[in-house]
Amino acid sequence: MLTNVRSDRVAAVRGLRQRPVRERTGRFLVEGPQGVREAVRYAAERVHDLYLTEAAAGRYAVDIVQPALAAGLRVHSVSEQVLAAMCDAQTPQGVAAVVEVAHPTLEAVLAAKPTRLVLLHEVRDPGNAGTVIRAADAAGFDAVLLSASSVDVTAPKVVRSTAGSIFHVPVVTALQTPATLEVLRAHGIRSLAADGAGPVTLGEADLSGAHVWLFGTEATGLPDGLRDACDTVVTVPIHGKAESLNLAMAATVCLYASAGV
Amino acid sequence: MLTNVRSDRVAAVRGLRQRPVRERTGRFLVEGPQGVREAVRYAAERVHDLYLTEAAAGRYAVDIVQPALAAGLRVHSVSEQVLAAMCDAQTPQGVAAVVEVAHPTLEAVLAAKPTRLVLLHEVRDPGNAGTVIRAADAAGFDAVLLSASSVDVTAPKVVRSTAGSIFHVPVVTALQTPATLEVLRAHGIRSLAADGAGPVTLGEADLSGAHVWLFGTEATGLPDGLRDACDTVVTVPIHGKAESLNLAMAATVCLYASAGV
Repeated sequence: MLTNVRSDRVAAVRGLRQRPVRERTGRFLVEGPQGVREAVRYAAERVHDLYLTEAAAGRYAVDIVQPALAAGLRVHSVSEQVLAAMCDAQTPQGVAAVVEVAHPTLEAVLAAKPTRLVLLHEVRDPGNAGTVIRAADAAGFDAVLLSASSVDVTAPKVVRSTAGSIFHVPVVTALQTPATLEVLRAHGIRSLAADGAGPVTLGEADLSGAHVWLFGTEATGLPDGLRDACDTVVTVPIHGKAESLNLAMAATVCLYASAGV
Repeated sequence: MLTNVRSDRVAAVRGLRQRPVRERTGRFLVEGPQGVREAVRYAAERVHDLYLTEAAAGRYAVDIVQPALAAGLRVHSVSEQVLAAMCDAQTPQGVAAVVEVAHPTLEAVLAAKPTRLVLLHEVRDPGNAGTVIRAADAAGFDAVLLSASSVDVTAPKVVRSTAGSIFHVPVVTALQTPATLEVLRAHGIRSLAADGAGPVTLGEADLSGAHVWLFGTEATGLPDGLRDACDTVVTVPIHGKAESLNLAMAATVCLYASAGV
């Protein structure tokens, strides 16, 4: 069992909470049983090391440890203190994994003839970004696209918020939004800008055929130029006195509307 | 300007982050411009004191300060340090208010002939509870009901998560869920239990007429007895590989489905 909280290994894993370290090493940390289980299940070839406390190894023997060993992964027993020192989460629930960052390309996504996409433009809030990835997965979307200047989707809080969905749906990052809209249009994919001031309500919007939902920053929404570049601007109606929905809520409603609920 | 972070007033406001203090005083704290603005707009008669930094008093002069003074409220200028000492939020954005807790009753809600209600059974996560209140407001629901053993809706994180909606929608608390379902049924209000294992999908559910959505805890959902006591058990379908939606996401989708999107 690994018990030395001052070891180089602990320092290396702990370092993954910093973006420059993730970019240099091409690795990120997955915390908690749900995310780790999905990593083992859907991305075993990218899992470098698994870390479990003794209690967690018992609790997740069938869910995580057996499939991990069957896949030939390195499974390490660690003390509670070592796991806590490695993790960003306050309650990693005894399990974490170091996973190689995936770099799916827009070309690969398009080659699979997608019909449901979502594009986040300069979205900075980790919880919102992670929740949109989870919603896209749940609504059966084909991929999530993120512009340059968006939050790093391998940041611990984003990964936690996806609840494992980051291993289910391709997430393409660092895109130039206007150019991406052009490429999607050339592939017959219509663009829907979600915006509080759109002329079309969600109930009126044509959600048939291949389309991409575009969401902007939490604070200011989409810039005018991008909104105008989309084929339709769609509003999630507010029936009561609320000023708005937050990004994650609005996206969940829109994506489920596209899925036909 | 109030500048003494050690004053009795600061201690009294700061104490409101503790549930026993809120229960004893019948007051709670609202942090940030959105919540405070809605408190002044929709519940001025319950606002005891407003606290703003000089910068915030300038920024929110029209939105908050003028209507507050017009309503005869006590507006205090405070230093940044005093506001920070009063608040739970890391970024209260220069403004906070002490507000009297409202105690709407189920009887009063029913007297208004509601057609759309949501009932949270033992929901403990503050962010989820607050987001459901915000979603209920946005979807035009008539009230939010909470069972006993649910999170205290006047806790700072719940209040922040509602983004002001706690002043738009009646929130009835400390209910006994089975008895409440009976009362609602006697008033012709059908009950829909949201549950991952329901036989009816959201798209198939009859959302016409007066109804109440019932949601359970984040961890374990609704107890069997309560699920069986509802008229219909409804599943939000998962189209991809995600295990589930979180409570706030599922509730937002269900409530918007009831609103006809």
